Amino acid sequence: VIDKAVIISTGDELTEGRVTDVNSAVIAERLSALGVDIAAILKVGDDRTRLHWALGQGQELSDLIIGTGGLGPTANDLTAEVVAEFLGRKLHRDEDVARSLLRRFEARDLSGSVNNLKQARFPEGAVVISNVVGTAFGFRIAMDENKSLIWLSGIPREMVTMLSDTVIPWIVRMRTDAEPVSVYTAKIHGLTESKLADRLKSLSLSEGTKLSFRDNFPDLSLRLTVKGKRKRAATFESLKSQIKEILAPYIYAEGDETLEEVVGQLLLVKQKTLALAESCTGGYISHRITRVPGSSVYYCGGAVTYSNDAKIRYLGVHPHTLQEHGAVSRETALEMSAGIRERLTTSIGVSVTGIAGPSGGTAQKPVGTVWISIAGNDLHEARHFLFYGDRERVILGTSQAALDWLRMTLRDS
Amino acid sequence: VIDKAVIISTGDELTEGRVTDVNSAVIAERLSALGVDIAAILKVGDDRTRLHWALGQGQELSDLIIGTGGLGPTANDLTAEVVAEFLGRKLHRDEDVARSLLRRFEARDLSGSVNNLKQARFPEGAVVISNVVGTAFGFRIAMDENKSLIWLSGIPREMVTMLSDTVIPWIVRMRTDAEPVSVYTAKIHGLTESKLADRLKSLSLSEGTKLSFRDNFPDLSLRLTVKGKRKRAATFESLKSQIKEILAPYIYAEGDETLEEVVGQLLLVKQKTLALAESCTGGYISHRITRVPGSSVYYCGGAVTYSNDAKIRYLGVHPHTLQEHGAVSRETALEMSAGIRERLTTSIGVSVTGIAGPSGGTAQKPVGTVWISIAGNDLHEARHFLFYGDRERVILGTSQAALDWLRMTLRDS
Repeated sequence: VIDKAVIISTGDELTEGRVTDVNSAVIAERLSALGVDIAAILKVGDDRTRLHWALGQGQELSDLIIGTGGLGPTANDLTAEVVAEFLGRKLHRDEDVARSLLRRFEARDLSGSVNNLKQARFPEGAVVISNVVGTAFGFRIAMDENKSLIWLSGIPREMVTMLSDTVIPWIVRMRTDAEPVSVYTAKIHGLTESKLADRLKSLSLSEGTKLSFRDNFPDLSLRLTVKGKRKRAATFESLKSQIKEILAPYIYAEGDETLEEVVGQLLLVKQKTLALAESCTGGYISHRITRVPGSSVYYCGGAVTYSNDAKIRYLGVHPHTLQEHGAVSRETALEMSAGIRERLTTSIGVSVTGIAGPSGGTAQKPVGTVWISIAGNDLHEARHFLFYGDRERVILGTSQAALDWLRMTLRDS
Repeated sequence: VIDKAVIISTGDELTEGRVTDVNSAVIAERLSALGVDIAAILKVGDDRTRLHWALGQGQELSDLIIGTGGLGPTANDLTAEVVAEFLGRKLHRDEDVARSLLRRFEARDLSGSVNNLKQARFPEGAVVISNVVGTAFGFRIAMDENKSLIWLSGIPREMVTMLSDTVIPWIVRMRTDAEPVSVYTAKIHGLTESKLADRLKSLSLSEGTKLSFRDNFPDLSLRLTVKGKRKRAATFESLKSQIKEILAPYIYAEGDETLEEVVGQLLLVKQKTLALAESCTGGYISHRITRVPGSSVYYCGGAVTYSNDAKIRYLGVHPHTLQEHGAVSRETALEMSAGIRERLTTSIGVSVTGIAGPSGGTAQKPVGTVWISIAGNDLHEARHFLFYGDRERVILGTSQAALDWLRMTLRDS
């Protein structure tokens, strides 16, 4: 049975940081979803000694190594050779693969690339994993009675196809006796990570049950994982409903959904239209709303009014209001939301005005001071917020607070 | 001297593939640029045994461990504790950090979160690395006479600030005796990676000289690294000026500068003001402009006109133009840029209108069709673009094309 895996990504471009390795995350996610525990992810350059080290560690820590990269035709591509050395096998040429490669080179008039027949050489005993997209064929080989090694192309598109078509089905077959896993994820707004942990302290987590948090500002998410054959479903459902009850007002999404998708769904379902008037967020809320496909159905547009002049011309804010209360004030926020709603004749207008910093703060209105306002049919309200951190954090935090308030308004309408 | 480093990223979200680890690539890139060799990158979950394993391997393989993650306030955050165990030290509370944390919690009325004072505990002998962005302070500690360990927040924005402000300067000081390295980086717009490589084929790269590319859409960058004590400066200057000559029209920034910073600088220097009218980019260009501190000096605001109605009301686009030519057309783009410029009385108006997809494309105007227009004192022009890829890629690509065209217009004005 395959319970634990180590993922190895190879290539100088990874250890030099020229490329962000997405392969290992994709493999980790697919394997985790099957209940396989990822003991570690290792990345090394195109270097014989370091590859040997990675293989040795992988064999020690896991039942299965899944590696990517180093299967190309150049001198830097060492994988097949080093794996053969590591397992004490010889390299041999797979004639089917060689013929297939020759056919492809001829088709693309690359007949000169005989060098590429290097890509037909595999450690003895390996089962070839075909690559319908490119020329880097992969392989699977037993390391000993209980441990296997799988190697795939390092090019993400090719890797994904090989993983889905060949590797995942094989792992599923190998894991028919393994423990099933249930997973629940939720995204939270309005609690810090430590307050979230505090609130869930009362949950009794038995063996095989795990609760983890992830703070990726402005998103905070939690994940519940329950393993096991016996009582798993009951334990999972019970914990999930306890979590949902404790955190009800704070959960804005479940699974992979984003806040802007949830807001978009609510606007669709409630048949409302939206317009935005942004000052300190500079268009970021509008960007979040419009990156959702189909948002043009409910989003009409908005104004980014950085200057006072733009607030007056585009939103009809009174010069008197700006003079009396300032651009960052309840009064200005209220006039902005009403102004954008009226001018674009939408059901709802949302406005934000604040001081994103680093300059512009005062003792009364420090950097991070933000007013958000929502104008609707029977609603015209403004709320004060104080965000902590740099310019980017104030912008991100403001966008999250505005969208979450809009979500709750829509939900209750 | 620090010659070899191991990077460790921790967190269940990494080994479960819920997040792509960008931290390790950023650290690898910055350290490689200094000439430090990355022996391996290790990722493990929030697990005591596996953290010990990673620390042990890191110590064996390198002079310097740089780790991220596990510095939060919850029970899953094990770093300080496990590092202390690993080095046989005790944990002690840093009173300066504790005070700083308490001040921050009070400012945000989170005085209940005493739990967070866990974040003030570090292994004895550690030097605290401050975090101006968040509450996860880092630390540096000697593992033995020649080896050091540095740990940083796992949140990318925080990590980057800590890395730049504290870690990189420290490594530079520690490497005064190392082989010097000269690095030139440039950011490119208007060439694909393979065309870029083609154009630079003629450069003769000697031993110790390396040219690498990084395609992080919409940014494409190249890096020249020249190592060595002898002839380094001359080789470096010669290669750098050759590169600059070959790529002159395509280089929009050198070093770490972003395109929006370059545009902002040009607006400042040329004393111009800007307004934006965005359709398919939905506020993203405005967000890029306004995330630069101080942008309120040159940016007055803009309109996100998703609906035809908004284009008419906010930009004065003629209904006839929309009917005759459609919202995605040269004519509409021209009226949008002139309209926003006039209404916000700025020196320059920029507009974009296009089809970001996934739906809305036709045979004549497929998804990815975009018109960009610039209106200035003696300029009123529109250009057609066709971008490939999904909605996000069209939005990113459009923003890059618009900002780069604006950059060239400003430069030549």
